[in-house]
Amino acid sequence: MELLKQRILQQANVIGKDILKVDMFLNHQIDVNLLNAIGEEFFRLYSGSKINKILTVEASGIAIACITAQYFSVPVVFAKKGINSNVGQDLYCSDVFSFTKNTNTSISVSKKYLSPDDNILIIDDFLANGSALQGLINIVKQSGANLAGAGIVIEKGFQPGGTIIRRSGVRIESLAIIESMDNGNIVFG
Amino acid sequence: MELLKQRILQQANVIGKDILKVDMFLNHQIDVNLLNAIGEEFFRLYSGSKINKILTVEASGIAIACITAQYFSVPVVFAKKGINSNVGQDLYCSDVFSFTKNTNTSISVSKKYLSPDDNILIIDDFLANGSALQGLINIVKQSGANLAGAGIVIEKGFQPGGTIIRRSGVRIESLAIIESMDNGNIVFG
Repeated sequence: MELLKQRILQQANVIGKDILKVDMFLNHQIDVNLLNAIGEEFFRLYSGSKINKILTVEASGIAIACITAQYFSVPVVFAKKGINSNVGQDLYCSDVFSFTKNTNTSISVSKKYLSPDDNILIIDDFLANGSALQGLINIVKQSGANLAGAGIVIEKGFQPGGTIIRRSGVRIESLAIIESMDNGNIVFG
Repeated sequence: MELLKQRILQQANVIGKDILKVDMFLNHQIDVNLLNAIGEEFFRLYSGSKINKILTVEASGIAIACITAQYFSVPVVFAKKGINSNVGQDLYCSDVFSFTKNTNTSISVSKKYLSPDDNILIIDDFLANGSALQGLINIVKQSGANLAGAGIVIEKGFQPGGTIIRRSGVRIESLAIIESMDNGNIVFG
């Protein structure tokens, strides 16, 4: 997606070897106009898939999922991180390792909001090692819902998540795939 | 806001004396059509205020803030909880006590995304004891930005946050104010 790639080149910052900061428009400050273009593109890619629900994980994924959901006219469900006393215990759970934060987090979705009747599109901001996406896929499997595929805003193609998960048969559409960012120089695939 | 009040009566659950679960449409599953009606109402209330940025806090606030931001054509900034190694240390910080979780959390916003030129609308899902809203107001004050006001989806009028913060001179518009929910019976103000 050309608009997104241009924005990454203009405003993203590369930190060290593998951290890409997109705080200016996606992960801290949010450009809602750009999100609308992203949502429209996900709809173009998945409009034939009869999606009836979008699944994401807090926090950054929520913005993208909600704007995208408007194009599909479907609700969003977001997986919660950690154990939340405000939600009952009847949950689908999965563990996610964050390489950025070097921590293991449990994510969960109430069993009320996913069922075998659902046809799910997973939406998330990043795909790198694939731990968050694997966790969401695992939750969809537990629920018996069908997984139509995943829509990712930025994939780090030089990390293994995308390859591994595509090989397992999951459709993944990434709007910008970064092949390398050595010395701060971002190259798209 | 009648549509919202009806939805609360239909789908919210009262847990104990003071927890209102709106997981069905706002805090876990998200009804994006309802959020659009909410966003439109916030725009009606604040359309004369020349808002140039919406501030919220992760996670539930993000959905409401982003849908609302579309009506104002402005970006969203969301405060992050805890210390995040992926964001630099040049932050406005504030402490927030969660009565639901019985924990103290630090929230922060990068100094890059709030400035004295900004005219801020704070958006959040709940106002009860007011700790989260006070934390966001504190961050706006640190930045030197002007605070136009706050837009709250559900206020628990029987808890003190709204009264205390309005008394301090902050404009608060709450779309549904619950005066009591004794024995699970929700009464609006």
